[in-house]
Amino acid sequence: MNDTINLLMSHRSIRSYKPDPVTDEQLETIIAAGQMASSSSNVQAYSVIAVRDPKRKAILAELAGNQRYIVECPVFLVWCADLHRLEKAVQQHAPQEESYTDAVENFIVATADVTLAAQNAAIAAESMGMGIVYIGGVRNEIEEVSELLGLPDRVYPVYGMCVGYPNQEPGQRPRLPLKAVLHHESYDALTTEQTVAEYDEQMANYLSARTAGTKSTPWSALMAQKFTTASRMQLKDFLERKGFNKR
Amino acid sequence: MNDTINLLMSHRSIRSYKPDPVTDEQLETIIAAGQMASSSSNVQAYSVIAVRDPKRKAILAELAGNQRYIVECPVFLVWCADLHRLEKAVQQHAPQEESYTDAVENFIVATADVTLAAQNAAIAAESMGMGIVYIGGVRNEIEEVSELLGLPDRVYPVYGMCVGYPNQEPGQRPRLPLKAVLHHESYDALTTEQTVAEYDEQMANYLSARTAGTKSTPWSALMAQKFTTASRMQLKDFLERKGFNKR
Repeated sequence: MNDTINLLMSHRSIRSYKPDPVTDEQLETIIAAGQMASSSSNVQAYSVIAVRDPKRKAILAELAGNQRYIVECPVFLVWCADLHRLEKAVQQHAPQEESYTDAVENFIVATADVTLAAQNAAIAAESMGMGIVYIGGVRNEIEEVSELLGLPDRVYPVYGMCVGYPNQEPGQRPRLPLKAVLHHESYDALTTEQTVAEYDEQMANYLSARTAGTKSTPWSALMAQKFTTASRMQLKDFLERKGFNKR
Repeated sequence: MNDTINLLMSHRSIRSYKPDPVTDEQLETIIAAGQMASSSSNVQAYSVIAVRDPKRKAILAELAGNQRYIVECPVFLVWCADLHRLEKAVQQHAPQEESYTDAVENFIVATADVTLAAQNAAIAAESMGMGIVYIGGVRNEIEEVSELLGLPDRVYPVYGMCVGYPNQEPGQRPRLPLKAVLHHESYDALTTEQTVAEYDEQMANYLSARTAGTKSTPWSALMAQKFTTASRMQLKDFLERKGFNKR
């Protein structure tokens, strides 16, 4: 195993940060590394808003469901899928033609593009001794978050990311067994089902050990709870109003 | 700059591969590194199909628009957003309750989750001296690709990825200036527009130098062409039929 793989294998989400700042130069290194990720046909359909102002971080923390580490971290990055500058390119060069930025295809392209860049940036930050945690909570009140950040049409915040120096050393949560996610030649539904049962036991033991026996719900039961709870149901309308995912 | 950042900064998509194999052990290291990426609430909403069979690779290459490097690479990975095992968890633990796996929110979650894992895997492969290229072309004939791979409901192929040892040293395409994608405190539409003009000139020079002057279309003009061309318009219906992105 080389150093980079060691780094990838030792990832933990960090939810407590030291006050040490992230400098402009460090931030630029992190984002530049993000930009070198692959991009679908070089569209580079993303933007990232770096928020350092304590007042703005406090508002974002509240909108994201009172996650205090958003206030605590020195830089909060809001990663946005961005078809705005691509729509501008259409207006500039082909204003009489129909634009397809509102297609489902380009919603996928933009959502994947921003995620490739964000994950490269996460790894760059971790390689510099920092920690990160993704914050899906920016989609809780996506309209308010978008207004606060001045996001134009054809831009939506996909997730936030706290960045800073770790003030904790959390344990590493086990992942699904490899054979649950890696299939050979075609999808193997039977193996994936059987391995979920293994993982349920492993995760129940892990939770129990971390909570002195008070929690031991199997993973699949936690997932059933999660996916039978309506969450962020305003997204469909909001995204269509913003010019995404319409056809 | 540390070794990991150097690695991230030297990424190039590889479209020509040596015949050297990728072993099972190497593949497992790559996918295990992918699994250690962050996952929204630990849902791990992805699967990856490793295709090595030359006949299957040939069919996939044709379906993806005759991209010969899919045949040439020793392993072709098809990265899938996967809510199938999460729907199974609902059926197991809460069969009487309504499932929200078909919500736009969970379409975003699955599309982001698989991309975080895929990008970690890409970096792991590159750290081992291999090269990769993402293949959005698996969405061209998404129905046929899904049938060939036996993908059940609530699974869709987001992109493929060729993996193998590089047989070329392509140049590195410049990215948008940092200030086009990095905004401070709020979205800066003016700066992003001005920097696109800079980038247009830079990319025109880059293309011209690589094609002995025969190509020099500015980036924004290429983008206008791309986004005024209808592409993969069957995705909306296909995804809804598969149980994604419905409400």
